[in-house]
Amino acid sequence: MKLVTYTHGAIARPGLLVTAPGVKTDDASGAVVLDLIRSLAWVDGRKNAAAKDERAFAEKFGDSVLGFIEHAVDARPLAADAIAAHGRGELPAKTDAGAIAMPAADVTLLSPIPRPPSMRDGYAFRQHVETARKNRGLEMIPEFDQFPVFYFTNHQAVIGPGPLRVRPRHLERLDYELEAAIVVGREARDLTAANADEVIFGMTIMNDFSARALQMQEMLLSLGPAKGKDFATGLGPYLVTMDELAERTVKTPRGNTFDLGMRAFVNGEKLSQGNVNDMTWTFAQILERASYGVTLYPGDVIGSGTCGTGCFLELNGSKITKDQWLKPGDVVALEIDRLGRLENTVVAD
Amino acid sequence: MKLVTYTHGAIARPGLLVTAPGVKTDDASGAVVLDLIRSLAWVDGRKNAAAKDERAFAEKFGDSVLGFIEHAVDARPLAADAIAAHGRGELPAKTDAGAIAMPAADVTLLSPIPRPPSMRDGYAFRQHVETARKNRGLEMIPEFDQFPVFYFTNHQAVIGPGPLRVRPRHLERLDYELEAAIVVGREARDLTAANADEVIFGMTIMNDFSARALQMQEMLLSLGPAKGKDFATGLGPYLVTMDELAERTVKTPRGNTFDLGMRAFVNGEKLSQGNVNDMTWTFAQILERASYGVTLYPGDVIGSGTCGTGCFLELNGSKITKDQWLKPGDVVALEIDRLGRLENTVVAD
Repeated sequence: MKLVTYTHGAIARPGLLVTAPGVKTDDASGAVVLDLIRSLAWVDGRKNAAAKDERAFAEKFGDSVLGFIEHAVDARPLAADAIAAHGRGELPAKTDAGAIAMPAADVTLLSPIPRPPSMRDGYAFRQHVETARKNRGLEMIPEFDQFPVFYFTNHQAVIGPGPLRVRPRHLERLDYELEAAIVVGREARDLTAANADEVIFGMTIMNDFSARALQMQEMLLSLGPAKGKDFATGLGPYLVTMDELAERTVKTPRGNTFDLGMRAFVNGEKLSQGNVNDMTWTFAQILERASYGVTLYPGDVIGSGTCGTGCFLELNGSKITKDQWLKPGDVVALEIDRLGRLENTVVAD
Repeated sequence: MKLVTYTHGAIARPGLLVTAPGVKTDDASGAVVLDLIRSLAWVDGRKNAAAKDERAFAEKFGDSVLGFIEHAVDARPLAADAIAAHGRGELPAKTDAGAIAMPAADVTLLSPIPRPPSMRDGYAFRQHVETARKNRGLEMIPEFDQFPVFYFTNHQAVIGPGPLRVRPRHLERLDYELEAAIVVGREARDLTAANADEVIFGMTIMNDFSARALQMQEMLLSLGPAKGKDFATGLGPYLVTMDELAERTVKTPRGNTFDLGMRAFVNGEKLSQGNVNDMTWTFAQILERASYGVTLYPGDVIGSGTCGTGCFLELNGSKITKDQWLKPGDVVALEIDRLGRLENTVVAD
């Protein structure tokens, strides 16, 4: 299933995105958003003589996608029932509490997880690391192949589809980064690459927007990127549960890999192309390292790192771009097979 | 006032630490912990004919120090009244709901903020940066003096006083780091050094425990420290509101500095000595940079970075220590004037 956070009025609410069979994932036309809490309350009320009301459900599930993940054992079967009931035309379009089923075109999608509990970003694509280092005059280093490195980034500045608001210094070499991200499904510690895939709840597109002038300057002090990447990270447009990726999943001893094509467009022009399958380190291996002596929590986000060709920093100087950076008015669209299309427009703040 | 999170039974609850007049801040003998929610409910109930019950208060304030900070406008005056009532001997030792006033020796203190919304760590002491770089064969770099750098660290692995549980790889060159940290009091964005002190709610001691082998290895990949510092950060033993530091505060155009002596002891031997006043960059300047185009939230923690001499990494090779690292059974105690004493014992997990 595909989880979203949407507004249809003032308040952000969790929902389920239902696409018509055969429709491409980057095409939201004909898609319907089911209000999660109202759908679940309706399904549960039909089964039980003592019908649960919406408020009781919201209290139980926390009225957010994060709450749904935390209570997935109980909540997922009800959500599956709701989607099936909608498919059979049984789910009403609204109840006394409000709308249950809305055309996706009528709602605004936020990030599926507007405020994850934490956010790490990996560095798993060898090609990106190699090229990005080369463009800074640095050689590839052997440690890349020894362990999957990551860093912590600002989980309090997540955006969904829509405007990317930036300040003047962010516009000094503003870049996008084409990534996939997983969302942790349950509390876990000391995972191994062999069992770590069990804790992955779902996957979404990540755009690790980067202000390269700020980033390159601060990295001279050896603490890594922080201010250069803290202003906005795109996550969305929806969170796809792992069962939907089953036929694109390749089981390996170092954890699953995923055959999912990745593309980035700036103002409609395709600039980046990769595949989640090209990750040199699997998400399972990154999870093993991240959870060594450390507890992970439901909703924690872990990015893949940028795929090869996945940003201007890599492309500039190539045949594709010479010295191009994002500017106000530019539209960046990231696509990953099965994960949809995450589109942002740069707006000077 | 001094805020704590304590257990006196199974559940962690917020409290106020009240020390006897004239008692040194690192001496908890004779100190009393007032249960925050019960104290506030009692004070409010005395004022209002319709007495509020504990549950209503817990719902209002979220039953945590973080909730107190978020609702400080309403909650602080009540807490001040409760401390005054306790001083006059009026506050009862218990109510029907449970204990209000307990000897500090009878409770267990956790970190005052066991799960801050986020945690950044600065790099503000020139001496530490200079010596730590020198010990790695690196020269001091001019960018240190141009802007106050910081990085994001794992806010989900905060510990208070007590055991520091580590895995085998953490024991490969395990180090402490003597730091002060501020806690943000309210939502803020685009602060300036001139106004940033207004958003500081309080200060506490920070021990940025570091597994140097992991840290130095991962830093070769340029993403900064992450795995080397993600397993535990000490914060505590209590959170002191800024009014209590007024007489140690020095107003400057680049924000306040604080004349607070800092000391670290390992197994009773004093190894590190510094002063919060030695910060080359003020907390206000770090807040200015951190909040540029980024929203800070109540409860966010920002560390000062390590003071000069504040870790084995700096000391090793000096007259003080040759090649010493923390090992199981070692007791690390950090003291900062007015902020108390944060003591941890290394335990192999």
